[in-house]
Amino acid sequence: MKSTTEPTVTHGTFTIERTYKASPGKVFAAFAVAETKRRWFAEGKGWEVDSYELDFRVGGSESSRFRFVGGADVPEGAPSNGTPMTVAITYLDIVPDRRIVYAYSMSIHEKPFSASLATIELHPKGTGTELVLTEQDAFFENGDNLALREEGTRELLDKLAAALA
Amino acid sequence: MKSTTEPTVTHGTFTIERTYKASPGKVFAAFAVAETKRRWFAEGKGWEVDSYELDFRVGGSESSRFRFVGGADVPEGAPSNGTPMTVAITYLDIVPDRRIVYAYSMSIHEKPFSASLATIELHPKGTGTELVLTEQDAFFENGDNLALREEGTRELLDKLAAALA
Repeated sequence: MKSTTEPTVTHGTFTIERTYKASPGKVFAAFAVAETKRRWFAEGKGWEVDSYELDFRVGGSESSRFRFVGGADVPEGAPSNGTPMTVAITYLDIVPDRRIVYAYSMSIHEKPFSASLATIELHPKGTGTELVLTEQDAFFENGDNLALREEGTRELLDKLAAALA
Repeated sequence: MKSTTEPTVTHGTFTIERTYKASPGKVFAAFAVAETKRRWFAEGKGWEVDSYELDFRVGGSESSRFRFVGGADVPEGAPSNGTPMTVAITYLDIVPDRRIVYAYSMSIHEKPFSASLATIELHPKGTGTELVLTEQDAFFENGDNLALREEGTRELLDKLAAALA
């Protein structure tokens, strides 16, 4: 018999499509080049990046460590100021200019609260690129942050658009 | 405009529940101890294991390399004899006796053909264990092996039952 106090996991998935004016090669490079990826993925108002590392290859990893520092730009649902957070990515498949597949966990104080599988597909569309992001998520300890996660991912893809402009 | 010859990715998910007579601690150990895990997860009739490595910790990895060798026990849909296959796992979250979350890719000739996020939850049930496995999959290049993957996973959980007996 299950205890109601046991940790449980909530699963969900979402898909976001975006069209960028940049070529698939340029969009791909925004994921592959550490200084570009750091700018749109890790940096932002409302938090401070403590460290960022990218090893963009199949089997390689990426680590972003940061702390929210308060102010109007802190995302809804973010932990309190100063709490250390980590996004730890492992790359599972990379097809240049076409596809990037990675798993990632998000942690507070080194304790994971979610795990995700993300698929990014790039399709040429005229002189630009159609990006399709599919994320399959597992939220731990009865958490259900699917709507927040999708919203945060949409904000990241807006920042990618700005980085490509 | 999309080209019909472009690689595409198919997503899907399945859940399997099993009840084992062994305690959660014993079921957990069958995932955590390399020689036990190798026996039910990597070894089997119809294929030969070339190498097996397990580093069971958050951020750790597991690698199984094998080749099908023919005969009645080769699973449906398996590649032709001698083709090198790899299952590469990364552990994203581990809660002893409770939860194991990992991402994995499967590759033929080092080329990934799928990526997956697997959540295993262990709940005490009397003196035994209820295991709930949820797998979220991405199949590459227009593949859609969800039914085969679920069938293969059910066979693995049968082998786990035998290993626990």
